[in-house]
Amino acid sequence: MIKHYSITLPSLSRGFHIITDEVLQKIEKLPQEGVLFLYIKHTSAGLSINENADPTVLMDYESFFNHIVPEHMPFVKHDIEGPDDMPAHIKSSLVGSSIHIPIIGGRLALGTWQGIYLCEFRNSPHRRSLIATIYS
Amino acid sequence: MIKHYSITLPSLSRGFHIITDEVLQKIEKLPQEGVLFLYIKHTSAGLSINENADPTVLMDYESFFNHIVPEHMPFVKHDIEGPDDMPAHIKSSLVGSSIHIPIIGGRLALGTWQGIYLCEFRNSPHRRSLIATIYS
Amino acid sequence: MIKHYSITLPSLSRGFHIITDEVLQKIEKLPQEGVLFLYIKHTSAGLSINENADPTVLMDYESFFNHIVPEHMPFVKHDIEGPDDMPAHIKSSLVGSSIHIPIIGGRLALGTWQGIYLCEFRNSPHRRSLIATIYS
Repeated sequence: MIKHYSITLPSLSRGFHIITDEVLQKIEKLPQEGVLFLYIKHTSAGLSINENADPTVLMDYESFFNHIVPEHMPFVKHDIEGPDDMPAHIKSSLVGSSIHIPIIGGRLALGTWQGIYLCEFRNSPHRRSLIATIYS
Repeated sequence: MIKHYSITLPSLSRGFHIITDEVLQKIEKLPQEGVLFLYIKHTSAGLSINENADPTVLMDYESFFNHIVPEHMPFVKHDIEGPDDMPAHIKSSLVGSSIHIPIIGGRLALGTWQGIYLCEFRNSPHRRSLIATIYS
Repeated sequence: MIKHYSITLPSLSRGFHIITDEVLQKIEKLPQEGVLFLYIKHTSAGLSINENADPTVLMDYESFFNHIVPEHMPFVKHDIEGPDDMPAHIKSSLVGSSIHIPIIGGRLALGTWQGIYLCEFRNSPHRRSLIATIYS
């Protein structure tokens, strides 16, 4: 069985955000056994799975991605929407646009310290659309 | 239901290429509801999802990946096939070798600005083999 | 049909390790047609698919990731478990926590040169837990 859920997140500030609860709230009920596939319909934001306990991890992620993909790199041509435009595209391919998490015993089989990250790479507010697909 | 499709792409030059149409042409008909899983059988090329409208984005990707994974890094030992050999392996793990896209209403549920990227990291011509798997 | 397998790996040293055989040994029998989804339940290790033949590739990966995500980056706040703590989280999101591989004719449809990588980013020994999910 396949079931899709459209999830539109509230506008989130540039940075890394844990959205595990928001995703689960949109899915009426997890099956006993299955897989959750999560997909983001945007090219300047991404999805990842990482540490869910210490807020400084989220800040360090933002610092690192700005360090490795800074604005105003001399070779960048695509800046039509501003200096955060192309860096946002690059960051989104580095973290990726899709994840999967097994569902076991009616729950997401996340590790103890794992949460779902929404990685927002643009300065201006965007409401991001995800598709959660449950296979069971 | 599961169905696999083998897709062999024409040889593409080093760089980033949008292959959404090539992939769809090989799949006779999308189901109403399902998921497309796409997998690349190579370790010096990758798959990603990113911007589908402005060709300068593709060029900026190539520039960025050459900037972050340059040839002739002093610590590299694996250069048997030339200076683009090990950088190609590294780049392929940074973008990844597999993606998924939900299928809703008989169509890929790509965002407006999303396309499927084939990321070719080698200088010499290679015909790349993909496997598209449709779950429905 | 869905089947999950819990896989606990032996403790592996910091670096990149090919675990294709370990994963296959835990799965009693692959179906004729399907997909293997592999998920790691940790935020300081990752999964990838890359070159399976030359051990220097594994070393070059370790060198590259240390180069691009060094310890003691000045902006890092999260260092509660030591200087390898936050770099390990970052590296895990760069390679990712999940992969899929098609199953065709009763075998993983890996390319000739592809193997499954366990990427261990911590100095201290950890036994890593994976979940292999087979859809058929």
